[in-house]
Amino acid sequence: MEDLFQTHRHLLDAAVEASRARGFWSAFSEVPRTYGEAAPAEGLAAFEALKGQPFDLSQPQDGPRIGGEVSPFGPALGITYPSATTGTLVAAAATAGREWARASLEQRVGVALEMLVRLNRASFLMAHAVQHTTGQAFAMAFQAGGPHAQDRGLEAVAYAFEEISRIPGAVRWEKPMGRSTVRLDKDFHIVPRGVGLVIGCATFPTWNSYPALFADLVTGNAVIVKPHPAAILPLALTVQIGRAVLAEQGFDPNVLLLAADTPAAPLTKSLALDPAVGIVDFTGSSAFGGWLRKNLQDKLLYTEEAGVNTIVIASTDAFAAMCANIAFSLSLYSGQMCTAPQCLFVPKAGIETDEGHKSFDQVVAGISGAIDALLSDPARAAGVLGAIQNPATLARIGEARRLGTVARDSAPLDMEGARTATPLLLVADADRPETYLEERFGPISFLIPTADAADAIARATAAARSKGAITAALYSTDPDLVADAASAYAAAGVALSVNLTGGIYVNQSAAFSDYHVSGANPAGNACLTDVAFVAGRFRVVCVRRPAAA
Amino acid sequence: MEDLFQTHRHLLDAAVEASRARGFWSAFSEVPRTYGEAAPAEGLAAFEALKGQPFDLSQPQDGPRIGGEVSPFGPALGITYPSATTGTLVAAAATAGREWARASLEQRVGVALEMLVRLNRASFLMAHAVQHTTGQAFAMAFQAGGPHAQDRGLEAVAYAFEEISRIPGAVRWEKPMGRSTVRLDKDFHIVPRGVGLVIGCATFPTWNSYPALFADLVTGNAVIVKPHPAAILPLALTVQIGRAVLAEQGFDPNVLLLAADTPAAPLTKSLALDPAVGIVDFTGSSAFGGWLRKNLQDKLLYTEEAGVNTIVIASTDAFAAMCANIAFSLSLYSGQMCTAPQCLFVPKAGIETDEGHKSFDQVVAGISGAIDALLSDPARAAGVLGAIQNPATLARIGEARRLGTVARDSAPLDMEGARTATPLLLVADADRPETYLEERFGPISFLIPTADAADAIARATAAARSKGAITAALYSTDPDLVADAASAYAAAGVALSVNLTGGIYVNQSAAFSDYHVSGANPAGNACLTDVAFVAGRFRVVCVRRPAAA
Repeated sequence: MEDLFQTHRHLLDAAVEASRARGFWSAFSEVPRTYGEAAPAEGLAAFEALKGQPFDLSQPQDGPRIGGEVSPFGPALGITYPSATTGTLVAAAATAGREWARASLEQRVGVALEMLVRLNRASFLMAHAVQHTTGQAFAMAFQAGGPHAQDRGLEAVAYAFEEISRIPGAVRWEKPMGRSTVRLDKDFHIVPRGVGLVIGCATFPTWNSYPALFADLVTGNAVIVKPHPAAILPLALTVQIGRAVLAEQGFDPNVLLLAADTPAAPLTKSLALDPAVGIVDFTGSSAFGGWLRKNLQDKLLYTEEAGVNTIVIASTDAFAAMCANIAFSLSLYSGQMCTAPQCLFVPKAGIETDEGHKSFDQVVAGISGAIDALLSDPARAAGVLGAIQNPATLARIGEARRLGTVARDSAPLDMEGARTATPLLLVADADRPETYLEERFGPISFLIPTADAADAIARATAAARSKGAITAALYSTDPDLVADAASAYAAAGVALSVNLTGGIYVNQSAAFSDYHVSGANPAGNACLTDVAFVAGRFRVVCVRRPAAA
Repeated sequence: MEDLFQTHRHLLDAAVEASRARGFWSAFSEVPRTYGEAAPAEGLAAFEALKGQPFDLSQPQDGPRIGGEVSPFGPALGITYPSATTGTLVAAAATAGREWARASLEQRVGVALEMLVRLNRASFLMAHAVQHTTGQAFAMAFQAGGPHAQDRGLEAVAYAFEEISRIPGAVRWEKPMGRSTVRLDKDFHIVPRGVGLVIGCATFPTWNSYPALFADLVTGNAVIVKPHPAAILPLALTVQIGRAVLAEQGFDPNVLLLAADTPAAPLTKSLALDPAVGIVDFTGSSAFGGWLRKNLQDKLLYTEEAGVNTIVIASTDAFAAMCANIAFSLSLYSGQMCTAPQCLFVPKAGIETDEGHKSFDQVVAGISGAIDALLSDPARAAGVLGAIQNPATLARIGEARRLGTVARDSAPLDMEGARTATPLLLVADADRPETYLEERFGPISFLIPTADAADAIARATAAARSKGAITAALYSTDPDLVADAASAYAAAGVALSVNLTGGIYVNQSAAFSDYHVSGANPAGNACLTDVAFVAGRFRVVCVRRPAAA
């Protein structure tokens, strides 16, 4: 059996170092051409071969084959997956988990790293799987669904490895007691928390699941992955690859199981409530997050939930570049990112810029025009916007029009069969926060005139505290204002990007550097990834006995 | 202002090193004579001076002075404490906490270390305060209430310092993008979770509170200490010393507040429910622990709750020493330790020993006789047993007699005015677990005949999983049995001591080495102290902006 830990040791060491340094680092290339000339065609062929077929997982199954994925770009995938009852899945995971918990840290880390490397090799296949479940455009599906998700998984491996490896396996404890000495030999056992349940979402099935999946595995917990019924394939591929590595290394592959379900017969609640499940990771609505908090009081629960991200525009020395940057952030994946801005607060008297004073209406026009310019080329528009994952999002756009004055209307792209929508920009009344301070998932955003810049920042940070927020952006040429604002945003638990222009956007969160979600406001109780995200997933139990003198 | 961080840097470095090495290490001497000749008399005089007086805390107060502490050794203390409403306390803590959160890590660590050093100097005073609230004998009150508690606090400081200091304050992030490079400057802000509420217990007011108190402080959270109404003084002294250090260093002393209350008007629930409180640490009953879990779904909650600790006696090569060791563990502080054994499982056919075969009854007689021998000298008995903290414990002993066959009866010591009781030993029926598998806090233990050693271990580990357990002991001369048992106890989340004889006991948990409470069974959801105990008490928020090229 290959020593996977040694094989991938250099990767691990670099990841541990990067997780501490927190500068730019990436293990897995986001540039498609670095994967070789054959990779794109092979990935596409592999994807096409899966369509219309039963997906092979060789895992315990006592239910019918299920699966109703339909690409937001049009075609039904026609792929079916094995299904099983909660009892069958949890029993299989618990059995497999006992042996997994006894494996060495190095064995578990080796398996995890080999999984990541193989997932990386499958990045083109994964890109198609992510594209045709989430609606992300191909380039984004490749990066976010492939290498960026793999980096996030690797980051969790690095944290979990470091936390466990800091605990000595055995020590001698020698206490001087006057003229004698008491000597004990102590063994420290790493004990898993119980089966881990990872509940995936429909927009970022891999990126949002990998940190939990890999943190659970390395800390000794078997994992049941419960994909969103609309985005099963990316996680089925992940589980398939993981089970293959486990089996090759002599482990029960049920250490990693897929729990595919349907909207008509959902498994999530019964899985979460099962006593053998000790850890639940969830990405999704605040309503279901609240249900989990209420019902899982004895379990470890990590959530990423809804929020309202904001931009404050106080002043700028690069008006056109600012508008272009914001336009891209509002358009990227049609606002279906948990990091996409929804509320833009602008002083009602307008702002000072490098192009002179701009009235509120001129700022609105600047952003609206930048969106139009960005989307003027149909191919570029399709590449930026992708498709709308959920039909409910289209309906939400329709309903949102009555929430304010339409500054830029949403419209479909000319893409046969695809569900698309360009950004809807509304001007809202600051005194009617009920219109703009609920999460309106999708390409819906609000421009809100405020008394002044301070009022704008106060509203943005208050919204983060009360409604939750993962990201915020601020444009200001006043260093003192920025410094004060930084403290206010930090206290509100929201990551702040200041004066972004050019090819970097508030939506982007980089593995090994950005802490995605703070856990300090209602947008989630956990961060991907920090020490707190991994440290509770295992426990330490000491066995001590008298030592020979 | 003194740079307390530099002053105590050597102490911190040694503590960090010890928390990783986990061999024996102690910062604060447990040997009274090392504190100088004058210390005992000064400590006693300071304690006497407090009796019958209002205790000075100079903290916000909008209620009457309260206090009804009565020494388990007899006299009422007559000390009164300021009281305040939840609103007043939380508002003061929240205000003070804002500045505290902005202090540097080094400032907060310096304050915490200075507090510990001053608490150490007050160890004799603290010993009297702990003795006359908890009922611990003086020697134990000195060690457990003083240096051992201080070591536990220091351990938390070390963990919190290390976790925060691993996060860089600022980094430059440089991502190559083809021919250009995106450069961002990122600041990482450490954000507290909210006001920390530390709920003390009546038996180990300092030892069980210091880890949370110091972890909260170092991670930037203001702390409200809610002592048990029967054991206020030890924590009032702690808060008094802490407030003095804070004020001297220019901080608002309301970073640390005492929330004294009475059984008639308890503050705990309203404090715990206050929205500004973000972290709750609790030592006490499973019933109240359950209430906290149910009601604090959005807060960080660390608990140590009830459990049933066990001893399995399978065989021994040191029968007399084993009996003496167990006798001490059952007698120490009259079984009022969360680490004291309650259930002793012994094969009904008896065991093999260095003194030949011993029947079940002979094992019972051996332990019973060892208790009698230990307690035969009145002064030694008083020094080991101490007094009974709560009158309800005496009543519980009375009721317990009907739960089995009395093998050794409990009796008071001949100590005028003191509430005392020697251990009650009962033989129980293995098939009636309801008699012995509920926590019977105090000097009550059960000897339970089992089918064999394997049955004994199965019952002990099952009890840990279902009822919770912090400690377990096992006596066996069979290395294979011990090895298998070690895995079973680890999986049940209970610390195991094997074949202890001589001057080390299952009840003892050493800072920097033993992980007190695993968090992996119902006896508590947290460990004192591991990384998970500190890592969630703060959050990291990133502020990023374009860097100059």
